[in-house]
Amino acid sequence: MSTVIFALRPATHPSKKWDIVMPVVRRTRDPHEGEWALPGGWLQADEGLSAAASRTLAETTGLHPAYLEQLYAFGAVDRSPTRVVSVVYWALLRADAVEERAELENVAWFSVDGLWGLAFDHDEIVQYALWRLQNKLDYSGIAQGFLPELFTLSDLREVHEAVLNRPLDPANFRRQIESSKEIVATDEFRKGSHRPARLYRTNSEIALANHGPLKPETQ
Amino acid sequence: MSTVIFALRPATHPSKKWDIVMPVVRRTRDPHEGEWALPGGWLQADEGLSAAASRTLAETTGLHPAYLEQLYAFGAVDRSPTRVVSVVYWALLRADAVEERAELENVAWFSVDGLWGLAFDHDEIVQYALWRLQNKLDYSGIAQGFLPELFTLSDLREVHEAVLNRPLDPANFRRQIESSKEIVATDEFRKGSHRPARLYRTNSEIALANHGPLKPETQ
Repeated sequence: MSTVIFALRPATHPSKKWDIVMPVVRRTRDPHEGEWALPGGWLQADEGLSAAASRTLAETTGLHPAYLEQLYAFGAVDRSPTRVVSVVYWALLRADAVEERAELENVAWFSVDGLWGLAFDHDEIVQYALWRLQNKLDYSGIAQGFLPELFTLSDLREVHEAVLNRPLDPANFRRQIESSKEIVATDEFRKGSHRPARLYRTNSEIALANHGPLKPETQ
Repeated sequence: MSTVIFALRPATHPSKKWDIVMPVVRRTRDPHEGEWALPGGWLQADEGLSAAASRTLAETTGLHPAYLEQLYAFGAVDRSPTRVVSVVYWALLRADAVEERAELENVAWFSVDGLWGLAFDHDEIVQYALWRLQNKLDYSGIAQGFLPELFTLSDLREVHEAVLNRPLDPANFRRQIESSKEIVATDEFRKGSHRPARLYRTNSEIALANHGPLKPETQ
């Protein structure tokens, strides 16, 4: 089991608000000792796949993401010295969860831009997870998984810009998101140096992530 | 490894042209001896996941689908008497491949409408695969996977109608599919009892299925 976790961090480049970052774990044993790899571990006989992904993630990084979805099973014969099939999950961390995270030895957070050189086939897995995240923006409310319960349209647009790595026209973005019915306007406003901005929340009738007819795994 | 294969068969009900059908295999040993199950078998140490899906599918059904994609890894603790994680693939059969298929003992083809009572958690897997097929219609040229190289707009609309299980307005369908650029008009026509219908082919610049940045598995 391995998990790719995406989170936001204030961008280093002035052209955007957020960078997408992810935690990686330094391997303390062979193979690939000393290299960075995705957090993960072995499936136990008495646990389901998503439970194992959650457990191994918590054990290696201390993280408990609210959103966790199966990404893909990777099983090329030569991906590890011994035959290993990895069922990989991916997760999003809300901004408040990122602030709470502990500083752990052997865990580091890197921007996904230019993140290369991970152990095993983990570079390929990260690129695939990023592609899935970008694709899923178009047909789900996945971007809201990065945000707290209440957010402005600017907040949401800035998340889309970070994921797509390009600027979006604010007026077009507003039209598209309002027609998608993914979010609901509240009566609250965020006050600041500019004029007050209306706060929105996720439309709970349209789930954050649509898993289809799969029932939650038992255990 | 298990595989869900979808194919078309002339519909029994006059309201539509095609039924979606799939092959299932009668189990010849415990657990669930005598029950119907998805075709499949065990992963070998020296083969990749998609290679194993292709091999076990060919061994149990004689089928070699052109299109094969990973669906999901199912690993609930109680899904089999012993602990089994199944990586499930799904496939589409082109109309001409269906006609070539051999009649094999212990293999039967059933309409997916009302197909229940399969062994293990295979009912759930079939419903999930069907949901994936329906979803993927909207953002890919997946429906063309059922058709021969050249087809009319009516052919394509009838496939969409079979997958979605509802009628589609021919004029709206034509507009949508033409704006998607998924298909390309040829200079050929199908002649028949009605006025000749223009033949189309898949736009090879837009792949039948977009796997994203995943490289093909080795072996």
